[in-house]
Amino acid sequence: MSTQQDVIDVATRARAASLVLALATRAQKDAALLAMAQALLDRSEELLAANAEDVARAVADGTAANIIDRLRLTRERLDAMAQGLRDVAGLPDPVGEVVRGSTLPNGLELRQLRVPFGVVGMIYEARPNVTADAAGICLKSGNAVLLRGSSSARSSNAAIVAVLRDAAAETGLDPDAIQLVPGDTHDSVKALMRARGHVDVLIPRGGAGLIRSVVEESTVPVIETGVGNCHVYVDRAADLDQALSIVLNAKTHRTSVCNAAESLLVHADVADEFLPRVVTALQEAGVTIHGDGRFQAHDGVLPATDDDFEREYLSLDISAAVVADLDAALAHIRRFSSKHSDAIVTADQQAARRFAAEVDSAAVLVNASTRFTDGGEFGFGAEIGISTQKLHARGPMGLPEMTSTKYVVTGDGHVR
Amino acid sequence: MSTQQDVIDVATRARAASLVLALATRAQKDAALLAMAQALLDRSEELLAANAEDVARAVADGTAANIIDRLRLTRERLDAMAQGLRDVAGLPDPVGEVVRGSTLPNGLELRQLRVPFGVVGMIYEARPNVTADAAGICLKSGNAVLLRGSSSARSSNAAIVAVLRDAAAETGLDPDAIQLVPGDTHDSVKALMRARGHVDVLIPRGGAGLIRSVVEESTVPVIETGVGNCHVYVDRAADLDQALSIVLNAKTHRTSVCNAAESLLVHADVADEFLPRVVTALQEAGVTIHGDGRFQAHDGVLPATDDDFEREYLSLDISAAVVADLDAALAHIRRFSSKHSDAIVTADQQAARRFAAEVDSAAVLVNASTRFTDGGEFGFGAEIGISTQKLHARGPMGLPEMTSTKYVVTGDGHVR
Repeated sequence: MSTQQDVIDVATRARAASLVLALATRAQKDAALLAMAQALLDRSEELLAANAEDVARAVADGTAANIIDRLRLTRERLDAMAQGLRDVAGLPDPVGEVVRGSTLPNGLELRQLRVPFGVVGMIYEARPNVTADAAGICLKSGNAVLLRGSSSARSSNAAIVAVLRDAAAETGLDPDAIQLVPGDTHDSVKALMRARGHVDVLIPRGGAGLIRSVVEESTVPVIETGVGNCHVYVDRAADLDQALSIVLNAKTHRTSVCNAAESLLVHADVADEFLPRVVTALQEAGVTIHGDGRFQAHDGVLPATDDDFEREYLSLDISAAVVADLDAALAHIRRFSSKHSDAIVTADQQAARRFAAEVDSAAVLVNASTRFTDGGEFGFGAEIGISTQKLHARGPMGLPEMTSTKYVVTGDGHVR
Repeated sequence: MSTQQDVIDVATRARAASLVLALATRAQKDAALLAMAQALLDRSEELLAANAEDVARAVADGTAANIIDRLRLTRERLDAMAQGLRDVAGLPDPVGEVVRGSTLPNGLELRQLRVPFGVVGMIYEARPNVTADAAGICLKSGNAVLLRGSSSARSSNAAIVAVLRDAAAETGLDPDAIQLVPGDTHDSVKALMRARGHVDVLIPRGGAGLIRSVVEESTVPVIETGVGNCHVYVDRAADLDQALSIVLNAKTHRTSVCNAAESLLVHADVADEFLPRVVTALQEAGVTIHGDGRFQAHDGVLPATDDDFEREYLSLDISAAVVADLDAALAHIRRFSSKHSDAIVTADQQAARRFAAEVDSAAVLVNASTRFTDGGEFGFGAEIGISTQKLHARGPMGLPEMTSTKYVVTGDGHVR
């Protein structure tokens, strides 16, 4: 049997499950989520054993230590996964929410309601916790989910899905609402991308290469997530203490995440005063600066190329340049930003207004760290990813972003 | 120069125009729309002359009379196009609308604002009025638009775009916000579909073949529109007078539109009473019925195949079947509906609730004609098309659906 047929088969079962799940009450869905959370704890031995297989394989393959760390499950991480599911249970049900409603002049009642997509495909890398997070968010939003994690986590993912399915089934939900995509090779990813009509939306989560290939090859509609070449622009009117603290936080608070700053721009008028301070502080924090000519005047600053300004380092590196003015900063961001999150530090209201209006990114931050672009920080309670596309959802995606809508029009024999 | 490069060139100019248009005030945009409306009237001679070339070519090519009718411009149609632009000027500006806003626990101010997509590509067939409609809706929503009409309307479209650009330029807007895609062949459509990064969203409007090819081939995100295999289901608890009037209206009010009914389902319990009435009434209105065995017992009813149940006739034809119960009706609709608009006629509240919940279509109508699924009827004031996909927009798309959003996060030196 071909991989394409395998994927269509699981998608067909997911579709059947989704039709019932779409009608489930919040109480039913929350009961399943709480049972799933408890099952992760009750069956932690078997999950840790499965994960140990993945870790042993990765070690034997000579995988880098930081990748192995992301792959590894611990009791603490299982606790966090379980808590994540309980948190989702505590969130309002997006399904059925009336987004818009009115009585038309002819007496027709018009309501636009949130409804699930149906079948969601998730393609993601290393971290096995995404398996539980995605299953929980999809279940709560009434969607069946097809999970395609990385082959390096295959034993962990299979064990987690088995545990979640058993728990969902015990509460009366169809376990086919949560399924792994069969097959370890790239063929199964391809088959998922070709399952138009069977899968309603695909969400890739991972590195730039993965996301680019899904966006370009998929005939299933895609929500693009998470590549972040984020800028901090220090304006001439910046409070330089604030600017220093924001730059340090945005760059060093956590380097491997998409909302970390990767590029620093400084207005020429404050460069003489700010550059010595920011270079020293970044270097003391272990950051390697890839700078333009002005920055290179400082010890230890490496020269920056266009490649540096384009790069999402995800490490203790930052590109840096002095810009003549706000216009030059806006032009630089227009050219290099990945349109995720860009920040300005300024006390000048007009500069802040222009930056917010003219920077075309999912999130624009004024006197705040780029690290705040996050579903948790925004108060969404759960996040399936951060969309960097303009269709459907942009920025952190919570439960409402995992739904479509439907119009229900009620009349009394109305005709035109 | 290759067609791909031609398209990238116009898209690049459109991008530059879009950056300025995104910041235009409502007053500026409305002034341009009113000037564009007036210019269509002032320069009607040259528009009618250009259109006469298209009509003459179509006649010489032996084009069908109904297609020629759709292609033809008249003074009345120019008046309607101008009125359309004035109507759009009268609508609220979606750009800048705060969709969501709150102050987070840490004091950060979070606002989610509507912003334009940027550059929109429209691919559409015969009717030249779409050229003005699309230009008006895109301009009001702050988007630059690349228009690719059918080659049969090329003289008309070129003349309309020239008039609209001149008028926009006179009010100070960059005319490159409204451009024709160069080239008459399918290569230019292909080039548009491959212009990812240069074009933010593609909206195909036209027949099923056009839409399918765009959806399958485009690497630019697509909003799928308008194929409608719409059902009317007459429940056992229907008021049969209402049912008759809704079926007739949905089928015969206008046959060439996507919200016309193409299929009739009748509950077995009311078939004996309703079939003679509905068959006679439809036939008297000139409708050809393609029916199942029960319908074929009536004179003049042709046999229906699965192809009939799948078909969007867009003509005075309807497929028809008797179903055992509501479940059978739901199963039939699940199998054959294009998920545009489906209606139930019933006095039974529970049947109406189940139908509304379980039919997975952009619009579900209860005791109302499918013809009501329309931006004008819904009170949107303008409509760029009816989305039949689940991402971004579903159902009639007005001005708000032509926007993305952006988060603006304002702090006071906030760090995590």
